[in-house]
Amino acid sequence: MQYVNRFLVPVIAILILLFPAVIFASEKEGAEADSSKISSQTQACIGCHKTYTPGIVEDWLTSRHSKALPSDAVKKPSLQRRVSADNIPDGLSGYVVGCYECHSLNAEKHKDNFQHMGYKINVIVSPNDCKTCHPTEVNQYSDSKKAHAIKIIMENPVYHTLVSTITGVKKIEKEKIISEKPSDFTLRETCLGCHGTKIEVKGMKKVFTKTPLGEIAVPDLANWPNQGVGRENPDGSLGACTACHPRHGFSIEVARKPYTCAQCHLEPDVPAWNVYKESKHGNIYFSKYHEWNFSSVPWTLGKDIKAPTCATCHNSLIVSPEGNVIAERTHDFGSRMWVRLFGLIYSHPQPKAGNTTLIKNKDGLPLPVTFTNETAAEFLIGKEEEEKRLDNMKKVCNGCHSTNWTNGHFEKLDNTIKETNDMTLAATRLMAEAWEKGIEDKANPFDESIEQMWIKQWLFYSNSIRYASAMTGAPDYAAFKLGWWELTNNLMMMRDAIDIKEQVKKKPESKTTKKK
Amino acid sequence: MQYVNRFLVPVIAILILLFPAVIFASEKEGAEADSSKISSQTQACIGCHKTYTPGIVEDWLTSRHSKALPSDAVKKPSLQRRVSADNIPDGLSGYVVGCYECHSLNAEKHKDNFQHMGYKINVIVSPNDCKTCHPTEVNQYSDSKKAHAIKIIMENPVYHTLVSTITGVKKIEKEKIISEKPSDFTLRETCLGCHGTKIEVKGMKKVFTKTPLGEIAVPDLANWPNQGVGRENPDGSLGACTACHPRHGFSIEVARKPYTCAQCHLEPDVPAWNVYKESKHGNIYFSKYHEWNFSSVPWTLGKDIKAPTCATCHNSLIVSPEGNVIAERTHDFGSRMWVRLFGLIYSHPQPKAGNTTLIKNKDGLPLPVTFTNETAAEFLIGKEEEEKRLDNMKKVCNGCHSTNWTNGHFEKLDNTIKETNDMTLAATRLMAEAWEKGIEDKANPFDESIEQMWIKQWLFYSNSIRYASAMTGAPDYAAFKLGWWELTNNLMMMRDAIDIKEQVKKKPESKTTKKK
Amino acid sequence: MQYVNRFLVPVIAILILLFPAVIFASEKEGAEADSSKISSQTQACIGCHKTYTPGIVEDWLTSRHSKALPSDAVKKPSLQRRVSADNIPDGLSGYVVGCYECHSLNAEKHKDNFQHMGYKINVIVSPNDCKTCHPTEVNQYSDSKKAHAIKIIMENPVYHTLVSTITGVKKIEKEKIISEKPSDFTLRETCLGCHGTKIEVKGMKKVFTKTPLGEIAVPDLANWPNQGVGRENPDGSLGACTACHPRHGFSIEVARKPYTCAQCHLEPDVPAWNVYKESKHGNIYFSKYHEWNFSSVPWTLGKDIKAPTCATCHNSLIVSPEGNVIAERTHDFGSRMWVRLFGLIYSHPQPKAGNTTLIKNKDGLPLPVTFTNETAAEFLIGKEEEEKRLDNMKKVCNGCHSTNWTNGHFEKLDNTIKETNDMTLAATRLMAEAWEKGIEDKANPFDESIEQMWIKQWLFYSNSIRYASAMTGAPDYAAFKLGWWELTNNLMMMRDAIDIKEQVKKKPESKTTKKK
Repeated sequence: MQYVNRFLVPVIAILILLFPAVIFASEKEGAEADSSKISSQTQACIGCHKTYTPGIVEDWLTSRHSKALPSDAVKKPSLQRRVSADNIPDGLSGYVVGCYECHSLNAEKHKDNFQHMGYKINVIVSPNDCKTCHPTEVNQYSDSKKAHAIKIIMENPVYHTLVSTITGVKKIEKEKIISEKPSDFTLRETCLGCHGTKIEVKGMKKVFTKTPLGEIAVPDLANWPNQGVGRENPDGSLGACTACHPRHGFSIEVARKPYTCAQCHLEPDVPAWNVYKESKHGNIYFSKYHEWNFSSVPWTLGKDIKAPTCATCHNSLIVSPEGNVIAERTHDFGSRMWVRLFGLIYSHPQPKAGNTTLIKNKDGLPLPVTFTNETAAEFLIGKEEEEKRLDNMKKVCNGCHSTNWTNGHFEKLDNTIKETNDMTLAATRLMAEAWEKGIEDKANPFDESIEQMWIKQWLFYSNSIRYASAMTGAPDYAAFKLGWWELTNNLMMMRDAIDIKEQVKKKPESKTTKKK
Repeated sequence: MQYVNRFLVPVIAILILLFPAVIFASEKEGAEADSSKISSQTQACIGCHKTYTPGIVEDWLTSRHSKALPSDAVKKPSLQRRVSADNIPDGLSGYVVGCYECHSLNAEKHKDNFQHMGYKINVIVSPNDCKTCHPTEVNQYSDSKKAHAIKIIMENPVYHTLVSTITGVKKIEKEKIISEKPSDFTLRETCLGCHGTKIEVKGMKKVFTKTPLGEIAVPDLANWPNQGVGRENPDGSLGACTACHPRHGFSIEVARKPYTCAQCHLEPDVPAWNVYKESKHGNIYFSKYHEWNFSSVPWTLGKDIKAPTCATCHNSLIVSPEGNVIAERTHDFGSRMWVRLFGLIYSHPQPKAGNTTLIKNKDGLPLPVTFTNETAAEFLIGKEEEEKRLDNMKKVCNGCHSTNWTNGHFEKLDNTIKETNDMTLAATRLMAEAWEKGIEDKANPFDESIEQMWIKQWLFYSNSIRYASAMTGAPDYAAFKLGWWELTNNLMMMRDAIDIKEQVKKKPESKTTKKK
Repeated sequence: MQYVNRFLVPVIAILILLFPAVIFASEKEGAEADSSKISSQTQACIGCHKTYTPGIVEDWLTSRHSKALPSDAVKKPSLQRRVSADNIPDGLSGYVVGCYECHSLNAEKHKDNFQHMGYKINVIVSPNDCKTCHPTEVNQYSDSKKAHAIKIIMENPVYHTLVSTITGVKKIEKEKIISEKPSDFTLRETCLGCHGTKIEVKGMKKVFTKTPLGEIAVPDLANWPNQGVGRENPDGSLGACTACHPRHGFSIEVARKPYTCAQCHLEPDVPAWNVYKESKHGNIYFSKYHEWNFSSVPWTLGKDIKAPTCATCHNSLIVSPEGNVIAERTHDFGSRMWVRLFGLIYSHPQPKAGNTTLIKNKDGLPLPVTFTNETAAEFLIGKEEEEKRLDNMKKVCNGCHSTNWTNGHFEKLDNTIKETNDMTLAATRLMAEAWEKGIEDKANPFDESIEQMWIKQWLFYSNSIRYASAMTGAPDYAAFKLGWWELTNNLMMMRDAIDIKEQVKKKPESKTTKKK
């Protein structure tokens, strides 16, 4: 890395002297930052960025980071704590958590560190940096499927084939569809938009040539911007806390509201958000959320909220109005779940480890089940763990529902998993018929028309029904909207397609996708 | 029914003594219940349930039920009344409407009544129980299609065939698709999720074995939980008030906000919600609803709200700012409507009675129209009633629109009904061709691929356009999104499918759905 | 035009005397109108309409129009001004902007002017009327594509063919699909719902026969109601300000909230709204908008809002917290955009003029590109203008994002435009094959099944991906939901359809759409 610009600290100090009015002005307008608690370095950042990226500064000024001292934060009673570190490094604990406090951490690990106005700054604040104050959360996250989200689709050859088949540009050559390798750009805004990109530092790049402070150059990052949950950062760490706590408010309110999860968990493949919206819980949330409290820690069932959001069931620290813990906080997002509704290709018990590339089924494929629904049991949690997790989830439900109600609900879910697996099996049998008869070619199981009908059966329709079942409500999602109607209709269409393609005695795959 | 647990009232009394602090604490935090107005029985319930289902207790504490005395409620001026009973039974009128007041009513009729901590408790509070204070609403509801919602689809053989065809698990046997009978579980979360299940008491079931109070057993209910609008309750009554007034806040605000109706009235078959969201009314609602009042009775047009929600046009008591009644409250949800937009298979005048299983068309089928769009007129309201209802609806529109505007709107709707019926007829003629040529088999008119294209024409696309037309706005729903684009494209696809299936000289139905 | 009713002003005056209490009552309840500032004519309007269309009166009472004097409005500092006229006509400047002030303007130009209770009233207030106080906005709008929105689809023969093919009623005659000309009613609620109708005065029509004031007749308007953006008004002007500033609150808050744009810009053809909702910006908006200010002028980035809505990037006057202008207000909605994402059939530089019917491509078609993606460059803005506009847009982004972030974002968008254009080209090549082989008939390129698959490729899927790319986020829209999954699958389906239709040796077009 090269040092493009060197500025003396005094230059910055002069700049700061020009800007205090601005900082105070913002305080008066309700964003109550106390400049005596802001480190001199962060004041320097704000001095310029108040002008150059005012939205970032204003967002931060409304954040808890801009007001709370880590030294106070660690003293809170256990249930009210928002930081999990017992000791905060000296230099950090006496100032609010500002620009410099985060963007200067672990500089030696950051390939994206650069000299900027006399300071050594990291472009990206990574989970490993956040870990300074929030170690429990980062450690939990590191074990999750989310932290391994890039690897999971890019290093599993089956899923990677699906990714490439879908997102590669197609050209027509001599009436055939020829598929190219997907571009990094398209991967970044499709699959890796949620899963995360691998950020690489390509060098330095001038972004301003004529500022009062001279030329400004910054690290030139490949696959940036991206806030996917499994992002590989320039310091080697995995994840992006900003996926759910968006910059620079880092609001727990935002993370707890369902719109955050909705960025990735939506129809047609994972319609958790769509189902929630149309469910009874969603109905109550949308009708009454303005009366609720999304910022309190711990989060009190019945007091702060009257119906759950995603975070309530899946990761927040939940207590009863009497102060009893109903659910512990976790940032390993799969850890409260027993079953993985998301079928690959059948719904199955949760994997033991977040890195699912380790899984191998009996057919030798890196999938948690075989095509005929035998589970790769040694890589998945066992009955006992499943039951323990289900019992824990029921505790949350039982905060507002009778035991009988809760049990009746999950009994129904069990049956739904079974039946949607059966409907996937039916489609798989038809698929097998098409492959056996040579109507389509199994070499790439995702790139022909009947194959893509088969994908819809397990990836879109079976999944949708399971989410609708799991979230008590949204009957139309289980019925007509990506539900049983589609499951059934799709089988009819597959049957027809096989019969027709067989009859026309011409194998369409001769004209379909070939990789270059 | 067996008595599993017997507890003396004194035991409960002791428990109560342990919990008053909790009750008062909640009052201080804004949920203003006055414990002197809470019956001793309800105090006993709260004593334990504060711990065991705190969400229910907290929800109730924010409700009007937890604060209002029926004896006061009956004294309100007519337009402001929220109870329709003139006389409330003595034991109920002097306490707020708590757990025991509702869950103990009409115990002798309730097969789900059980001994619980010394009290005889019903698990389910039914419309017949709510009728104690709200008789007009329950009586109106009892005449509606909603109250008959189970019967309507399960006892009409045509609709029942559609239900079974869609929701039954399919297996592949010798390359054929074999359909099983749908399970109660899947029916509960698809069609009957909205329409309602028949709740049956199977016996008693232990839910806790090791509580401080010993074993706890409760009635074991089949097809529970469910809050479908036509639910058959263990006391024989029909309906679930909680479908729209969710437990235990019973909020009129929730019922009046559109998210409530959205639970069932959504795309692709009944996209009332989807259309509303994208309409001008929806636009104004979402932009400004935070300034409106959703709790006042009566509901004043222009003052409380500036744009309608579903409830405004379809069932709330609406008055002008001068206090004149614009629309009377009704809980017979079809009673303000003249036309039934929802085509079965053509749009038609509203049925005379909520129980539509009585209808027979000229072809002897239990449908309100024939396949060529002749109405079963004797079962449907006549011209005069249609006009009376339309005139009443126009009064609501004219609260904010000029007469000319309103008339222009409904003139357009009339044409849309005609044209979408014509587009359904075109699809029906193609369907008839396929049946006549033996390409598909009419025996079950819903289980083959061209048949399912035909279903989409009337159930999804024609309906969507009519809702878009009726709710002034959402042009994209009438155009590309489930609208004319699909109506037209679907005809092309049906034409092609007939031609192709005819040409390949192989009748696909030989491989399609067979009932076991 | 005939004068149906003549009432003396004194009659009105008497009526007014009966209603002041009502006006004052409404003031007390928070709608602070000061009747001394209301013109006598407007007081007369309110006198009756308070009873006859109370919603309109109440809506107006909450508006800025009901409180602000134009004479004060023109005196505001430049950045805070909401009116762009320097001089307001004398008769208008001293009263708040009431019913009469707007509905009486330019009466001589209004074919919809009529005698009403002694006054000459226009039914429709047109952009030309709003221009009295807001000339800059109306002039900008007049140059936009929106103002020409009717002409754009109805006078361009290619688009008009698409419109007619989709929206005409189809009948089956001798197994053939016969298409009729679309009705004005259906055009009004599909394409012209957004694009606007041509309002025509057919004569006068009695709307009330028995009022205390006798018979009331009003102009009988064809194609009314409608609020499409390009509406042709009875005074010859183009546009409907109410499309975004709905009557009679004319709220800048409503126009700035995304629900307004959502009325027309939604899936499947222009899923700007759907993408926004699922984007990071949308996530922050929905989670935090209750803390923001949507009414302040100018609109301060970081202070008033922490994330953009549609209006932020596309047309509002945006300033920094320090008061520097980041973006000037514009009501020419395309003028900040360099590229037209919406492909017809490929994405291309923005047209030079709002009236796109002038465009001709090299093949002589009225399209901005040829079928093989050669742009009609002389009708489109050049590189320099494109870059200027992009730079201006980046200023908005850079309010909250680093330069590097913003550049990385738009670099990705450029690639997405290229790749989606390539995927459109692939589909066009297959389409050409089908036409060349006589499988479908190019005469009408929109009315057969493979043609409609081709339409979906460029109109639905390529567009969706571009919107997802442009709005940083919503990865599922670019992937599975109307995105790359569909782009790829659609090519497979087109390939199959060509092969199958070719093999069955029967040209289906012999049975498809024929115009009557």
